[in-house]
This record gives sequence, structure tokens and C-alpha cells, in this order.
Amino acid sequence: MGSTWGNKFKISIFGESHGNGIGAVIDGLPAGIAINPEHIQHELNRRAARGNPLATPRKEGDQIEILSGVFNGKTTGAPLAGLIRNENTRSGDYAKTKDLMRPGHADYTSNIRYGGFQDYRGGGHFSGRLTAPLVFAGAIAKEILRAISPQMEIGSRIVAIADVKDKAINDWRVYCHLKNDFINPAFPLYDAKLEVAMKAAIISAMEDEDSVGGIVEGFITGSLPGIGNPFFESIESRLAALLFSIPAVKGVTFGAGFETASKRGSEVNDALRMRDGKIETVTNNNGGINGGISNGMPIVFQVAFKPTPSIGKEQQTINIAALKDATLKIEGRHDPCIVVRAFPVVEAVTAICMADFLLR
Amino acid sequence: MGSTWGNKFKISIFGESHGNGIGAVIDGLPAGIAINPEHIQHELNRRAARGNPLATPRKEGDQIEILSGVFNGKTTGAPLAGLIRNENTRSGDYAKTKDLMRPGHADYTSNIRYGGFQDYRGGGHFSGRLTAPLVFAGAIAKEILRAISPQMEIGSRIVAIADVKDKAINDWRVYCHLKNDFINPAFPLYDAKLEVAMKAAIISAMEDEDSVGGIVEGFITGSLPGIGNPFFESIESRLAALLFSIPAVKGVTFGAGFETASKRGSEVNDALRMRDGKIETVTNNNGGINGGISNGMPIVFQVAFKPTPSIGKEQQTINIAALKDATLKIEGRHDPCIVVRAFPVVEAVTAICMADFLLR
Amino acid sequence: MGSTWGNKFKISIFGESHGNGIGAVIDGLPAGIAINPEHIQHELNRRAARGNPLATPRKEGDQIEILSGVFNGKTTGAPLAGLIRNENTRSGDYAKTKDLMRPGHADYTSNIRYGGFQDYRGGGHFSGRLTAPLVFAGAIAKEILRAISPQMEIGSRIVAIADVKDKAINDWRVYCHLKNDFINPAFPLYDAKLEVAMKAAIISAMEDEDSVGGIVEGFITGSLPGIGNPFFESIESRLAALLFSIPAVKGVTFGAGFETASKRGSEVNDALRMRDGKIETVTNNNGGINGGISNGMPIVFQVAFKPTPSIGKEQQTINIAALKDATLKIEGRHDPCIVVRAFPVVEAVTAICMADFLLR
Amino acid sequence: MGSTWGNKFKISIFGESHGNGIGAVIDGLPAGIAINPEHIQHELNRRAARGNPLATPRKEGDQIEILSGVFNGKTTGAPLAGLIRNENTRSGDYAKTKDLMRPGHADYTSNIRYGGFQDYRGGGHFSGRLTAPLVFAGAIAKEILRAISPQMEIGSRIVAIADVKDKAINDWRVYCHLKNDFINPAFPLYDAKLEVAMKAAIISAMEDEDSVGGIVEGFITGSLPGIGNPFFESIESRLAALLFSIPAVKGVTFGAGFETASKRGSEVNDALRMRDGKIETVTNNNGGINGGISNGMPIVFQVAFKPTPSIGKEQQTINIAALKDATLKIEGRHDPCIVVRAFPVVEAVTAICMADFLLR
Repeated sequence: MGSTWGNKFKISIFGESHGNGIGAVIDGLPAGIAINPEHIQHELNRRAARGNPLATPRKEGDQIEILSGVFNGKTTGAPLAGLIRNENTRSGDYAKTKDLMRPGHADYTSNIRYGGFQDYRGGGHFSGRLTAPLVFAGAIAKEILRAISPQMEIGSRIVAIADVKDKAINDWRVYCHLKNDFINPAFPLYDAKLEVAMKAAIISAMEDEDSVGGIVEGFITGSLPGIGNPFFESIESRLAALLFSIPAVKGVTFGAGFETASKRGSEVNDALRMRDGKIETVTNNNGGINGGISNGMPIVFQVAFKPTPSIGKEQQTINIAALKDATLKIEGRHDPCIVVRAFPVVEAVTAICMADFLLR
Repeated sequence: MGSTWGNKFKISIFGESHGNGIGAVIDGLPAGIAINPEHIQHELNRRAARGNPLATPRKEGDQIEILSGVFNGKTTGAPLAGLIRNENTRSGDYAKTKDLMRPGHADYTSNIRYGGFQDYRGGGHFSGRLTAPLVFAGAIAKEILRAISPQMEIGSRIVAIADVKDKAINDWRVYCHLKNDFINPAFPLYDAKLEVAMKAAIISAMEDEDSVGGIVEGFITGSLPGIGNPFFESIESRLAALLFSIPAVKGVTFGAGFETASKRGSEVNDALRMRDGKIETVTNNNGGINGGISNGMPIVFQVAFKPTPSIGKEQQTINIAALKDATLKIEGRHDPCIVVRAFPVVEAVTAICMADFLLR
Repeated sequence: MGSTWGNKFKISIFGESHGNGIGAVIDGLPAGIAINPEHIQHELNRRAARGNPLATPRKEGDQIEILSGVFNGKTTGAPLAGLIRNENTRSGDYAKTKDLMRPGHADYTSNIRYGGFQDYRGGGHFSGRLTAPLVFAGAIAKEILRAISPQMEIGSRIVAIADVKDKAINDWRVYCHLKNDFINPAFPLYDAKLEVAMKAAIISAMEDEDSVGGIVEGFITGSLPGIGNPFFESIESRLAALLFSIPAVKGVTFGAGFETASKRGSEVNDALRMRDGKIETVTNNNGGINGGISNGMPIVFQVAFKPTPSIGKEQQTINIAALKDATLKIEGRHDPCIVVRAFPVVEAVTAICMADFLLR
Repeated sequence: MGSTWGNKFKISIFGESHGNGIGAVIDGLPAGIAINPEHIQHELNRRAARGNPLATPRKEGDQIEILSGVFNGKTTGAPLAGLIRNENTRSGDYAKTKDLMRPGHADYTSNIRYGGFQDYRGGGHFSGRLTAPLVFAGAIAKEILRAISPQMEIGSRIVAIADVKDKAINDWRVYCHLKNDFINPAFPLYDAKLEVAMKAAIISAMEDEDSVGGIVEGFITGSLPGIGNPFFESIESRLAALLFSIPAVKGVTFGAGFETASKRGSEVNDALRMRDGKIETVTNNNGGINGGISNGMPIVFQVAFKPTPSIGKEQQTINIAALKDATLKIEGRHDPCIVVRAFPVVEAVTAICMADFLLR
């Protein structure tokens, strides 16, 4: 329960880290939308971060096979199913330590929730690997949006890694071209000079057999005003639900977020102005959303990722079979900082959310 | 669209600030649960903040009439509908300025979304007044939880108002008795001495015809481990969706939230330990949730409220009929700080979320 | 659970036969649709069958109060809630016999389902009275369809009462004007001469303190081809689900229904032909639906209603409190044949179904 | 849209007759349920009717690969995905005649619905082949029911083929052992002697390059009373929705169905009686359901299947590209009577429906 989402762009994701395969079925697609396999694979490759020395050395091919729903290169209107076979799995790594609950992971909670029947290998269905089906579904969503809302652009940037923070963007006009301005799209920063310091923070954590967290900022530009439904289908409600589905996310804010809490209404209210015959706001403290509905300004939100819980350092935990205290050193392959692979996932769920709003 | 929520505790809320009435229908309730009208009214009174000089002077009676679903004091298993008549409405206040889009409000976005047909009086369906049906539904949810999960307690505290901040609670055991320790339950603070400074900040804003925001922390104690479903029905996903439905919420975090982003895994991972035969974590940086599922520790989350957008100060805006720049001074009755009335709403949606998880 | 329905035209119905009131909340309506209170009341009056000597003598005022969602005579896009107060209830009639399970009613099953906590008065939430909220929602749906699909017409006729059967309509063109051809719209028959015999069958049953069943045929004309979604949202699936929600319905067929089972493909397949530049079928054995999707021909379906289970004749039953055999003579006011009031309900749920398909 | 169903046993089916594969994802399964691959394959084989000379000669291997959700032979609580590769497809058969809309098929309606982008080969997503994923999901549902409601048995029988009709079963006790009494479980008849005549009717149609329809009766025994929710989630509503999802179904009745329409209440009401300390009904005209809720008697329902629309005889139709009248002789492989393969599908969706009701 819980792996199905959507009113109009309905996704059902499946798979485990070390099972036969992972994938997604998408129901609700309109017919006649061109599906470019290269676009899909490109998004999967961004997430896979192949060749990135800062990412897990596990070679995830992430080759997607489309099983249904596409005919002659276009959607048919029938469900589109995609399958990624698992490869390069070393399940043995996990069997040895299956009773040692990895702190910060879902090992203990899934054990309780599923009575010990969960697939414990590599976190099973809870694995970050399940973000690949999300990215696949997001890539399909991007194809849909490209066709039905061509102005809309979905982007993201790394705002912080560990304590290295990129600066805030106070002028919303910057977001309108930001996606094209990244010097290194594989490490998207507003201030590209911070890449060195951020990577150093990751390497430092790696050397200590530790990990670091970070912050991703997502943005949607060129969106039309009038998207979203109060109350429970506000943009914030729908998008936050998807963002919190991404493993390791511990916080989501829109616009100026928690900073608005310490300010006055006269500072936070975004004054409306006519400009060249169009309605704009002067500031964008509300992140492009009022009353849960888009106002036409860039939709901007921040997502906090905690440090990857898998670390090599020895940790205190329990042995769930023996019900005794224990210590654990996690071996195997891990991402020292999930943020460098997570921003495409943020974009993917954003595209899914927007497609769900915009499809009929 | 969007005023309906829930898988098992299904709510449908309706009404406008100045229409005939507001209310909610709740479908999915088990039969035989005692409904105490005093409990319900108590929750509505907490939200109404009657007599509180810091709240809007609008006299909202908020007397609930239960239309169906209760027989001989107990739920029947059929839908439970509740109706609150609107009283003391001064609709004329709004007609004069209906074309002046109040900054920070849903006036402009609802105008676009509904083509000008929305009920503009007092914000219509977008009004904070619609939190009364949420509190009503939450009160019913609390009755359900009292019956089916008696250990579970849902509480909240004010963490910040303007720039006056209460301290962080680092020991999760504090939450287990916090609800009973508040010196002023109508202004729940960990450090009760801050009440004076917080109220002073509100009064200062009032005097300036302005408003202030703040932060509410919600917590659930006595919850069983094993609640929640990855991915899209994680506790974070479901609860955040409801929290972001509350007007003025701009951020939601769980556990240590954005602070985890700047830390290392070894600092954020909550070590598991056996204690008196039970499994506990030493710290609670994950806010009682791993992999979207409760781990038995207190579930803790923070909610950022922006300052009330209705302020008396003159603001820049547009006239939507004339498509011209304009200025606006909002008259009428407003809350200078919604936080003092919002914490019961935070508790209400938390109860709704938990009832939805726990009902069969 | 179960009183909520719809993907886009979402309804939540509530109420009991002898509670404070019954009603419905409709979420998902577009803004700007004119709502004519006379249209709504007209539909409710058709169901109430006031003054009809063949219907229950209970005077059900069925005056609807619209609580929300309409402003200046048009929908606002916010949920539309309607309330009908219960009047003229004689609850005492039911208390005396509450332990005697009325055969054919939901008394026993609701007792099991809700552990005895259900409102037993007049069938509670199971009462045929709950079809009034359905008719209210259907009337709103008709207003929507009038605006967004003006050619579409929804009608119904009585096909049989007891063993008096009206003839089959083999030429689908007849349906295109049938609604306007009924000689007595309050007793809609293809062959109007049968009214006398049908009413005689009802009166005969009344005199015997018994009841009779019958068949209603619904039809939709002027519908566009291309409505419906395989598999689970076929027109048949969606419409049958709603039709079977009407109390006393025991069968639903589309087109030639069970007759197709005994025929050959060459007889049942509807040949396609061009006619005046448009695509038509020669016959309409498939009832206007292929593969769950409308083909542009009239959508035709039949609905079997069993005889009203409330009869004055003595019946064998059990006493649920004593767990003993018992006999029961039901007193009070009953419909000897629900069909004369049910055809507007069939139309109502058909309108709800079509609105759900056609809204975006 | 429309290939997803379920509140608690959520299925998403995908695939086309001639695409890469067909399958289903099932979300909402409890953990720890034994999944016996032989049981699954047995159900698929019943539907495939391999070796049956009366079924299509297409060799459908229908080997299912479980991709996820099962670990060490038991469900994990994560989504269970199953994939059947398409084999032995002769797509060329269909390309030649793709513009000739096969009467009685979804060719024309899907062309309208999907703007010509649908996969036309073998009916694409509308193919009867898509009942294989339904049977797969039903087999999983049967495993669940076996574990959580061991008394429940789901069975079916062929009631009619063409104009050869088996007799009605008036004593509900017969259903309690009927499943074990079938002389030929691959052709389940109450009166086994009719097999010859029924098969003769099929062969006669085959020889005429035609097809025949029939009726299947489904039954559920050993079910507990108290399953079902008024209004929209009555057993009838939920089950009928699934039954009408099966291609070629044109009618669904419960209990005495349309026969109740011509009878009196005193004949149709099922008298309740105590018998050996248990509550029973004397007759079962209501098919085990009152007010949408099971009463503990066998749940009995009939399903009308129209004749397979694919026939070899020449038919009148249109050419959708030329918008001209045309004639069509369908070549390739067809079932002369779908009923002989459809009864396991009826059982499958019944199991899905019951699992959806009974899961928490």
C-alpha cells in the first residue's frame, strides 16, 4: 500500500533493490504524445550519475524497457509500463547483517510494519534505487508537459551540501533563465565557484566513512496562473506529498518558507503590479502560489535531504532477532551524499505533479 | 475540486466565509464510537479563540449541528455530517473592494482559476474560516483515536512568533508529558515565560496595522511503531499534504528538518538501543519516522505560518477589472497573528491523518 | 464508508430517514454554471411523487437548501452542499419492532455490519429516502451537462411493472425523440395504453398488502462518441456501479443484455454504415457502447427493481435480540411499487456518471 | 485512464495483444502470505484453455514472471508485479485491415477515443488477452483470501451457451458443495449431460464461421455476513463494476435478478429463520446481499456474455480512413465462444473484489 499515486497521471511503482526488476506503470496518459527514448534515458542517466566519483560505485545500467502503451513512437492512451532489470546485485552483502537494524534506515520500521517478511536486501522496496522508476515516470511526465504546456520548464539547483551554502535568489526573474545558465548541469549551482567546496565536503565525509546532507531547490517557470485546487489539492499539498516520498527528505518549504514566520505581513505580501500589460508580483515570497493556486510567477521550493544513513563508521544499534544491543559497520557501496543524484528526482516528481494537474 | 480527502477517514469540507454555512461530511467512520458534543465544541472553541484580544473581533459562534451519523450518542457507521451556520457576517465590507486583489491572498489566483465566479466575500472558500470544518473533523478523529488507539496523544506548541523563538526540545522524552505541562494551554509554550514577549510582538504589529507569522510544532506520542506506507503514503507525505492545506502554511519539516542537511550521517542517524526490554532510539533527529513509517518515538514536526496577509497598512496591488495598478487599505476585522489560533488546526489535521492510517 | 463516489464529479451523500437531515456535497464543479433552483426542485418533486396515490403517503417536503458553492446564481467552483431537512417523521413506528429484522431489507445485514449501532428508524442510511440526495446531485449534474454538452439528453421509461411489459424498442432512432413523446411524463411509457394495466397491478398488490417490482430503461441520446475508459472505467462499469447503488436494484443490462447470450455474433454485431456523412450502426444491440466506450448511438440500459420489501402481509423472520423465530407485520407507510418513483433516480445517477466522465 | 482499480487491493493492468508484454501491479498486499506459483499458473492455464479445440488456436504460453513483491515464497508487503511476455503474435494479420472497423469490437470507439493512436493490432489494450493479467491478479487475490478468510470459496458454472440452458438452482445449499461436484471442471455444469449439446452449439457456429454467447453464474460461499458498504461500495456496485470490465459482458444480475421485477414482495423477500443456532434465509432471491451487504448466504450472480464479435462471416462495416462503406471478412484465430474461457475470469474479478473488501 502506498506505491500508487495520482488522480489523472496515475503511477504505480514496484520493485526492490535486489529483486528481478523495478519499474512503473502509468495510467491516464493522453494518446499521440511523442515519447523519445533518448529523453527518457537521459533523465535516468542523470539520476544514475554514472562515472561520478562521488556516487555509489554500483554500476546500475538502468536500461528501461517500455513494455506497453507506446506504438509507433507515440503514446496510445493505454497504460505505459516500463521495466528496469536489476543487475550487479551483491545480495550476499546484506544477508550477513540482516538482523542488525541500520540506524536512520527503514530496517526497523519495515520489520515492524511487515512482520519480518520484507525483502531486506539493500533496503528492498525502500531503497533509493526505487527513485529510478520515479525518474522514469517523471521523464514521461516531461514529455507530456512538453506537448501540452510547452512554456513550462522544470529545473533544480543544489543550494547546499553540508555547511556549504549557495546564495538565495531574491529576484524571481533569475529563475526564468537559470536552467540554461548552469555552468555544470551535472552539479547545478547558482554560484558555480562553490562546486569545489561542496565536493570537498563530500570527499571529507567519505574519508571519514561518513556522509553529508544538503538542500535542493526546485523551480517551475513558464507555468500558467490558475493551477491547483484548495484545500487538499493545493500545489503545496500535492507537491509536498510527492517530495516527501523521496527517501531522505526531511523538510519542504515554498517561497521564503520558514523565513516568513519571523517577518511581518507588509514584508511577506507580494505586491501585485501591471507590467507591459501583464500581471506580476514585485517579490516572490509566496513562491508563486497563493491559496494553493499558481499565480504565474516561478514556483520555487526547497527540499532538505538528510545525510545518507548508510555510513561505514561503526554505529550503535540493536539485533532484532536477539533483541540485544549491537554494533554495526555497514560495508558495501554507498552514496556519501545523495544530493548529487537527488536533484533529478526532485525534478521528476515535480513533473509528475504538474502533469497530474494539467491532464484532463 | 480538492476539498475532499482521505482513504478511510474520508472528509468533504464545504462552505464560504459569508455563505449560508460551512461544514464537513466524514465517511468511513466505524460504528459504536462515543461522540461527546463537549469534546467537539471544546476543539471548535480553541480555534475560535473567543475572548482572546489578539484574535479577530468577529464573533464566530461556531456552534456545530450534527446532521447525521450519530444515534444515541454513538457513531452509526453512516456518514457524519456537521454544519456551522455563518453569523455576524458583514459582507458589505468586501463588495467595495472586490476588484482590488489583496496581496498574499488567493484573490488573484482564485479569480484566474474560477474565471471571476468565485465568492469573493471574505475570501470565500479560501477563508481561514474553513479551518473550522477541519477542526470539527479533527475532533471526530480524536474521538476515534481515543477509542481505537488510547495511548496516542496529539499535541502542539507555539515555537515562534515573529522573531521570538522558544527553545528546541532535544530529549524526545519531554514530548511524552509536554501536553500536560503547558502553563497556559491557550498559548502552549515550552518556556512559558516567552508568552509576554510573543504577545508584545503581536500587539506591536497590530499597532502598526501589520501582522506577524510564527512556527507551530506538532507532536504525536504513544503512537505504535509501524504506521505509514512507502512511498506516497509515508507519514510525511500524508501529513504534509494536510498541513499544507491549512491557509498560510509555507513550510513543513519532520524531526531535525533542514538542520539535518548541514550535518553528517553519524550525527543524524538515531542509534537504536534496548531499554527495559523495549526498542528505543537515543536521539530523535528523524522525528519518529524512518522510511515513511513510525518507529515508536514521538512523531515531531514543525509548521511555518506566514504573517496573516490581511493588514491595515496601505499596499500596492492591481485592480483586476480595470487592469491597472492601485493601492489598497484593507478594512474590517483581521487576526494580527494566525498562529495563536492555528495550533488547534495543526492538531486537527494530525488527528485526521492518524485516523486515516489507523482505520481499517 | 461507501457514501462517497466520483473522480471528477465527487459526491458525498449523508443522512438517515429519521435524522436531522439528508443531503450531499459535490466537489469538482466548474465555476460559472447557472444553477436554476426550479430545475433542482423539479427533479426532487419527480422523485417525491407528491399527490401520487400509488406512492407512500409520507409527506416529504424535500425542500433543498443550498448551503455553499453557488454565488449570484452560478457555481463558484467550490463544493456545492445541499441540505434537506427531515419532516413528518414518525420514529415511534419503528422502535417497537426494531429487533424484528424485516425480510428483504438491510436490517439484518446492517445489524451485523455496524454491530447494532446503526440508526434503525426507517432503515436509517439505507432508506430509499437517501435517493433524494442522489436526485439532488443528479439535478446539479444535469445543469452541468446542459452547459458543457448541450446535445446530451438523459431519459427513462417504465418497461415493466409486475408482469405487465411494455414492448422493446428495436429502432434506436426512436430514442432520439422518446423523451418528448411521453403522453404522461409522470408515468413514462412507450405504449401509453399500458398505464391502466400497470396501475391496476400496483393497486391489486396494495389491496393484498403486498408490493410489486418492475423494470426501468434509461437512455442517453446526443452523446458524443468516445466517452469511457477501458477497463475499470468503462461506461458499463461506472454506470452499473451507480445503478446498483440504488436500493432494490437487482440487475443491470446494456443494449440487448441477456438476449445477446443466446444469439450468434452475426446477429449481435452492429454493422457500421456511413449515412449522410456520419458514422452510424444499423442495429444497436451493444447499447451504444463498444469496448466500454460510447459509439455515438443512444446508450440504452435496463434496470431491474425488485418489489418493495416493506409489505403489510405477515412474514416469517427472526428477533435479533432474542435469537428466536418470529412473525412480523410491517405497519406504517410504504410504496407498493418503487418503480413509479425510481425512474428519476435512474436518470439522476446517469447524469452523475456522465458529468463525472465529461468534467475535466 | 481506467486500467487501475481498488481501494485496498489496488491493481494496475497494462499491455496490448501484440506489444512486448502484459501484466499487472498489485499494491496493498499484506506481508507474509504464501504465494504458490503453481496456483497462479493453474488459474492462468484455466483461462488459456490450452488444448481445448473450442478455443482460439493461438498458443498463448502465459508464463508469468513475478518481478517484485515476493521474497522467500511470501509476499513482502511491497507491490507485487507480474509480467507475461507476448509470444506467437502475428501482427501482420491486422495491419492489412486496420482501417476496417470490426463490428462489435472497440475498433471504432478506440479510434475516436484515442485519435487513431491506439495500438490496433489484435485489439491492442482492448484485447481479451488482457484478461490474463486479471486472472493473475485474481490468483493472487485467491491466495490472500485463502489466508485471511479460509472458509470463503469462489466458484462459477456455465449456465447457458447459445440457446442451451442449464437449470436454475433454487436451493442455496447446493452452492455450498457445487464447486466440488462438477464432473468436468473445465466445463462446469450443474447438469453435466448438457456438455454435449453446448459443445455442439459451439461447433455449429464455428462451422458457420460464426460465434455464440452464453451465461456464467458466479458464486461465493462461506463468506461472512457483513461485507459491503452502502451506497457506492455495495457488493453489487463493486462487483458489477469489475464484471462489466470483462470484455463482452452485457448484463449482470444478483440473485433472482430480472425475475424479481415481475414478482410480488411476498415472493421475493427471503424469510429469515434460526437453524441450529445460526441465522439463515429460507430462499435466496436476494443472492446473499441485502442493502449492499452480505447476509451470509451464498452470493450468487449471473453474467451475460455476448457472442465473440470476431467472426469469419462477411460483415458490413466502414473504412475509417476512406469514410466509406466496406465489407470485412475477419481472418486469423478467434474463439467461437468466449464463455468456455471466461468463467475463470469471472472468478478472478470476484476474488479481486472480495480481497479489496476484506483487506484492511
